[in-house]
Amino acid sequence: MIPAAGAGRRLGAGVPKPFVELAGRTILARTLEAIAAAPSVAGLVVAAPPDRLEEVRRAAPEGAPLLAVVAGGEERFDSVRNGLAAVPEGTAIVAVHDAARPFVTVRETEAVIEAARRHGAALSVTAPVETVKRTEGGRIVETLDRGAIRLAQTPQAFRAEVLGRAFRRAAEEGEKGTDEASLVERLGEPVYPVEADRWNRKITTAEDLRLGEWILRERER
Amino acid sequence: MIPAAGAGRRLGAGVPKPFVELAGRTILARTLEAIAAAPSVAGLVVAAPPDRLEEVRRAAPEGAPLLAVVAGGEERFDSVRNGLAAVPEGTAIVAVHDAARPFVTVRETEAVIEAARRHGAALSVTAPVETVKRTEGGRIVETLDRGAIRLAQTPQAFRAEVLGRAFRRAAEEGEKGTDEASLVERLGEPVYPVEADRWNRKITTAEDLRLGEWILRERER
Repeated sequence: MIPAAGAGRRLGAGVPKPFVELAGRTILARTLEAIAAAPSVAGLVVAAPPDRLEEVRRAAPEGAPLLAVVAGGEERFDSVRNGLAAVPEGTAIVAVHDAARPFVTVRETEAVIEAARRHGAALSVTAPVETVKRTEGGRIVETLDRGAIRLAQTPQAFRAEVLGRAFRRAAEEGEKGTDEASLVERLGEPVYPVEADRWNRKITTAEDLRLGEWILRERER
Repeated sequence: MIPAAGAGRRLGAGVPKPFVELAGRTILARTLEAIAAAPSVAGLVVAAPPDRLEEVRRAAPEGAPLLAVVAGGEERFDSVRNGLAAVPEGTAIVAVHDAARPFVTVRETEAVIEAARRHGAALSVTAPVETVKRTEGGRIVETLDRGAIRLAQTPQAFRAEVLGRAFRRAAEEGEKGTDEASLVERLGEPVYPVEADRWNRKITTAEDLRLGEWILRERER
């Protein structure tokens, strides 16, 4: 499940972020290809801006198992919820991956899905390299135990039943969360971290886009 | 004050990290030049491996106000403490900057020093771009309020009296902290965050070094 309906205005390219080109292909096409390369990914569901559904169908790499392209909602939560409605009955594991993370590896995708199979919920994380501080009222008040902090990214994967329950609860409570894992955390269900590969970063700014071109070249070395 | 006595073995270059070359000059030479470029920096004190003091004297850029090169200790705390002993009497503000952050800008250095002048203690921070999680026993248990989290880097600057007090207290308590600001936080003194410029990252791995070459080229654009 790839939510790709956000505007991503910080990139300043005049088109929504997933449709911006990175070294000759859209970020979304690269992301779909990277995710579809994982053997455990049996089908793709993409949530897109309502006026770009056809464009997404064309962006899917040849042979990719595109199940559905659905219209996204106003927020990420709404887009993922619309996408979940298109997930086939009987699906065991649902993984969610940011459209703007085209550098995800097969290893990372498989590791997160495998952890979700085993534990119910898992996500890709990095350990912070910097000291982590907590602020209050614009001042730093505390240094947190860095060893206990992780920075969340995607893929995030879940047993379909667990994710469905988390979304129903979130909708009832009107709490949309910042990522899918946070909705599962609120159920009290355990969520397992999987260490990310180095370059699975999100493209947000024009500098990230140039950095992305550099990452592509580095990978070819 | 630049602590440059660490081994930095992750870089795998056979020499301590500050002495590794980045595009033809050592990381340390680039860092000293970047810091000395800030008009408020009246003097530099460097803590180096005991067998490299002379090399550091030669690495200092021409015209840089190098006050002292001292032998560093086993940990960062010890190196900074040795360096503090070489800071001239009557110094108002002491700033500490990682030897492995050669991309610091004059704007950022001046902003941190100015905030320390005004408030007593300040440091350069970034806001995390990812959702921040807390783990316990290898599981994710909570999503923290990202808006309240900051990732600490350097420069960190302090009124000399505040930093001296923080180091005396830390030595008494045998708590060396992970950065200088954490020692001041433990005094209960307010510490102020200053938003960092984008590329002031720490060079840790061989990939960071290649990324560093890319950053240098980007800056020339």
